[in-house]
Amino acid sequence: MQAQLIALDWGTTSLRAYKLAAGGQVLEQRSLSSGIMQLPSVPRMIAGQLCTDGFELAFDDACGDWLDAQPELPVIACGMVGSAQGWREATYCDTPANVANLGTSLKTLHSLRGVDVHIVPGVIQRSRLPNVMRGEETQVLGVLQSLSAGAGHNLLIGLPGSHSKWVEVADGCIVHFDTFMTGELFAVLSEHSILGRTQERSAPFDGEAFDRGVQVALSTDGEIGPLSTLFSARSLGLTGELSSTEQVDYLSGLLIGHELAALANVQRRRRDSAQLPSIILIGNSQLCARYSRALDTCGFAQVSLAEHATERGLWHLAEAAGLLG
Amino acid sequence: MQAQLIALDWGTTSLRAYKLAAGGQVLEQRSLSSGIMQLPSVPRMIAGQLCTDGFELAFDDACGDWLDAQPELPVIACGMVGSAQGWREATYCDTPANVANLGTSLKTLHSLRGVDVHIVPGVIQRSRLPNVMRGEETQVLGVLQSLSAGAGHNLLIGLPGSHSKWVEVADGCIVHFDTFMTGELFAVLSEHSILGRTQERSAPFDGEAFDRGVQVALSTDGEIGPLSTLFSARSLGLTGELSSTEQVDYLSGLLIGHELAALANVQRRRRDSAQLPSIILIGNSQLCARYSRALDTCGFAQVSLAEHATERGLWHLAEAAGLLG
Repeated sequence: MQAQLIALDWGTTSLRAYKLAAGGQVLEQRSLSSGIMQLPSVPRMIAGQLCTDGFELAFDDACGDWLDAQPELPVIACGMVGSAQGWREATYCDTPANVANLGTSLKTLHSLRGVDVHIVPGVIQRSRLPNVMRGEETQVLGVLQSLSAGAGHNLLIGLPGSHSKWVEVADGCIVHFDTFMTGELFAVLSEHSILGRTQERSAPFDGEAFDRGVQVALSTDGEIGPLSTLFSARSLGLTGELSSTEQVDYLSGLLIGHELAALANVQRRRRDSAQLPSIILIGNSQLCARYSRALDTCGFAQVSLAEHATERGLWHLAEAAGLLG
Repeated sequence: MQAQLIALDWGTTSLRAYKLAAGGQVLEQRSLSSGIMQLPSVPRMIAGQLCTDGFELAFDDACGDWLDAQPELPVIACGMVGSAQGWREATYCDTPANVANLGTSLKTLHSLRGVDVHIVPGVIQRSRLPNVMRGEETQVLGVLQSLSAGAGHNLLIGLPGSHSKWVEVADGCIVHFDTFMTGELFAVLSEHSILGRTQERSAPFDGEAFDRGVQVALSTDGEIGPLSTLFSARSLGLTGELSSTEQVDYLSGLLIGHELAALANVQRRRRDSAQLPSIILIGNSQLCARYSRALDTCGFAQVSLAEHATERGLWHLAEAAGLLG
């Protein structure tokens, strides 16, 4: 099959490249560590010029050979590559956002090798406490394309990560979303706080310790909130009730449990209903497995996982932008 | 006046030494940076022996000359010096804890110069999520000694810090306490998370930004909890609503606001009353000023500051231990 699009998912710490054929079918894919915060720095020749620009070097690493073979292939990219610290800033689009308005708002840059790169803007929600996303909007739109038209009103799309996003959708649009800094908080606490000092982090996933953390967050003891319950990851260690290998996953469960307890409250209040929405999770499979486990404990009865969300989203955005021949 | 006691407040990052006369009157005091995590390491002669032990070196720096002049002075110490990482571990006493049972549970070690050092144990509360303190118990007991016998039932003693403690007291006893890791969380987020990257930290205290953070925590937007509202310290920056100099104190207010909102809820529930207790704060004056400001916003109507809590507590504990001639 003939390639029709190069699609890049270019985040802070990684760069994924897809060569796509008709219908968004993946012909080839690659994963590089050249996120925008860890770009290559060794100069080399690109298109006959000595190049020192990290973005150009990473772009060439990711798909230079594909473009050598088919110089006319259109290129689309989403993620932090469009941030102020990225290759070119693509100003956020406001909510509600869908394939049509994002697809017609791509930011185009002309690369050293003469190829245009079309960057998907992120989405901003101008609420009292504003919210922003970059990259997740593409994944959500990728999932929405595969749902039936009526789906969405009782649906919540979750993207666990350093900054988890929970996205409310309606009629193919991203209408509202919340951010939780759970993943980054877990990382900085484990690496830089007193909680990390007694953690032993090499052990395999300890589901029992994780579940215990989730249960504490949901219990009456958890009502005091994460700023306080966090300390139990240390104090249960001091009393011998939590071993050093258990502390990591206990802390993970505790934080995810607090996130989901707060999410459930907010969803019930916003929907004015005791019933919780169905969940579709997008992301790293190990992290999604943790969230599935905790969502179940929190009373979210319907949870499913979406796959290929990014490449599908990029394909549909390229289509909406008129990039596909 | 004749000195009767050397009292040491020996924590993780600092060591304070007091020479006390009758009634706990302070004759002289010193502040050293030789906390148990930053002990001196240059060997020197102490009591005719070459000494390499950091605790002995710091102890000698703090009060060696006082002991040279009065070798019979008793020495008492509280704080992390009695932890597993300290000079000698002093096993926690259970709640309820008062001057009498802590004073008769001191851990004694014989120092290189032949002087006994009596270490105050910390306090442990064996609740489902256990809580521990080391050093704060001495401060609380110092405050309780100066209160009338009946005081306490409508009182909450607050010790803001890396790990804030909120202590319920009755009849001269520490009966219950909660810990919030607010201070440490603020530090690790500012130093190691994405929130710190856009902060400008050299500016003087910005009361307006701080109050805004507190207000957000108390608002309906704040009900989603700190794991989510944290992100507003970044997103309000992205939308130009919070400058880089304002972000630090906004984050401080946000975290302290969430701590106090949770504390108020828990206190109302435990006391089964809408009325909030009176507060006595112990600690660093700048941090206490922030907490006073936020407590007022949170509806705690009566807030006062305690002074000399540590040296008074150490004096009374030494008295209860029979160390004072």
